[in-house]
Amino acid sequence: MILTVTLNTALDLTYGVPELVPHASHRVSDMSERPGGKGLNVARVLSALGHETVVTGFTGGSTGAVLRELLAGLPTDATSPNAPAPITDALVTVAGNTRRTIAVVDRATGDTTQLNEPGPLVTADEWTALLGRYEELLTGADAVALCGSLPPGIHVGAYAELVRPARAAGVPVLLDTSGEPLRRGIAARPDLIKPNADELAQLTGSREPMRATRDARRRGARGVIASLGPNGMLAVTPEGSWQAAPPAKVLGNPTGAGDSAVAGLLSGLVEGLSWPNRLRRAVALSTATVLSPTAGDFDRAAYEELLSRVGIEEHAPAAR
Amino acid sequence: MILTVTLNTALDLTYGVPELVPHASHRVSDMSERPGGKGLNVARVLSALGHETVVTGFTGGSTGAVLRELLAGLPTDATSPNAPAPITDALVTVAGNTRRTIAVVDRATGDTTQLNEPGPLVTADEWTALLGRYEELLTGADAVALCGSLPPGIHVGAYAELVRPARAAGVPVLLDTSGEPLRRGIAARPDLIKPNADELAQLTGSREPMRATRDARRRGARGVIASLGPNGMLAVTPEGSWQAAPPAKVLGNPTGAGDSAVAGLLSGLVEGLSWPNRLRRAVALSTATVLSPTAGDFDRAAYEELLSRVGIEEHAPAAR
Repeated sequence: MILTVTLNTALDLTYGVPELVPHASHRVSDMSERPGGKGLNVARVLSALGHETVVTGFTGGSTGAVLRELLAGLPTDATSPNAPAPITDALVTVAGNTRRTIAVVDRATGDTTQLNEPGPLVTADEWTALLGRYEELLTGADAVALCGSLPPGIHVGAYAELVRPARAAGVPVLLDTSGEPLRRGIAARPDLIKPNADELAQLTGSREPMRATRDARRRGARGVIASLGPNGMLAVTPEGSWQAAPPAKVLGNPTGAGDSAVAGLLSGLVEGLSWPNRLRRAVALSTATVLSPTAGDFDRAAYEELLSRVGIEEHAPAAR
Repeated sequence: MILTVTLNTALDLTYGVPELVPHASHRVSDMSERPGGKGLNVARVLSALGHETVVTGFTGGSTGAVLRELLAGLPTDATSPNAPAPITDALVTVAGNTRRTIAVVDRATGDTTQLNEPGPLVTADEWTALLGRYEELLTGADAVALCGSLPPGIHVGAYAELVRPARAAGVPVLLDTSGEPLRRGIAARPDLIKPNADELAQLTGSREPMRATRDARRRGARGVIASLGPNGMLAVTPEGSWQAAPPAKVLGNPTGAGDSAVAGLLSGLVEGLSWPNRLRRAVALSTATVLSPTAGDFDRAAYEELLSRVGIEEHAPAAR
């Protein structure tokens, strides 16, 4: 199984409004509610790809209860030819209330305005409980993804504390976060990081992808998969360096595209795919996520069609 | 006791953001959560004025459970010299999920952007249960307020069905709603309505307050208290006609000012105050609500100070 860790899970609400007008009153015309936080999004895509997934992290309060109920009801389409694999809830219950995130979608333009609650205050005892649960779960994991922001109360070096036991247990670990938690987490030498251009620039001070990616490796990441948005991905790894790009730029909603890429990279790693094939999968999945009408879901037909059309270019060893 | 009916209760969330920028992502810097819907707001003010209140209407689902928990915890300040009177929860549980409303407050300007979920779909059986509960509660009520919008599934003539049994039981009934539910509710001859200028114009087609108020009485309302915002209130009743105004225009957040006015009018009625004193109370309470830093609460010191300073002008009988 693949383990995903979401320290700051969220109940993701999407509100459609005819038009968002600041300082006015709006009646929400359509709404949806689903379990969120990056690691939960990654798990949903892994599940759709047929990979058994276990999710851990923190959840609590009345919003946490709704999140768990929705998570338990997730793999509903068992009659489909692509029946999703189970997602097991191994979240640690905290006293605080899981945050809500609200995506307000202007139905006139399709633009989204995002409001994110900070999340519950997590105590030292709750963090200790998570560490214990995590180390148990690592014994059965083929790979682990550490995803997203830290809730209040969790120290900024938390991801380093989660990378180390994974490395000690020989479980490949991907770290997908930003800012200081990323900087501190990298020092513990995760197998992979997947920053976007902004996160990479914030980490390294450079906006030149190859230079910034190499710098990130020097800081401790064994492999760096830099997401270049519509231009695909740049992978710099101990095995080589590649650039992967979708056949054409696509228009749509990029929400969740990065989480789909993480699911593509991890599933490809667990299945023993070559780097070029892992990158094909990651780029095809994230592009198919942009194309999906529902934020965070991917369009399966587009994904399958894109797989063979992702362009891969290997960089010469000198460029590594 | 005073009974308030809120057919579309709400969990009111307030999100503070440093600055609201459409199409950007925002981290909520401060937040609060409280039981809402107009009738619940009215009950909270009545309670602060020392009036025992019973609230009914619909609530359900996980948001309904949070609302009831917060409602049960409301009168917390029992050590205060102005200890609030109890609010009794007589809400009818529905299968659907109580709506959330979100007030996004731009902390740079103080401006508020409001997002309101529509509310749960209420079934015919649930409506029948509410009618039964309501008729029982009327037997112990000194006055009743029917407040706010209708949830999906409730027919537009619902308020007329609630006005009639109150009139039959001899319980004074105030109707505070808008649009077609107001138009249909008025026909059942409520004792009072409290429209603002927009609601009155929508009902009567006239923006001239005296003309519109008289028209509203011809449509069935025995008394009309038109809220004129910062200019106070115009009351046209079978006992006479008055205009009441605060001593000066005030700046602040008008959220909940109308609900405070309803609480002022109903408490004054139950205490047997004269019309001028009821209007003084209503104008002082709503002005003190605008002045309060917390939306929907009133500033007690300002309220007490304002009571003697509200200007009252009686209109000559010819003008009635």
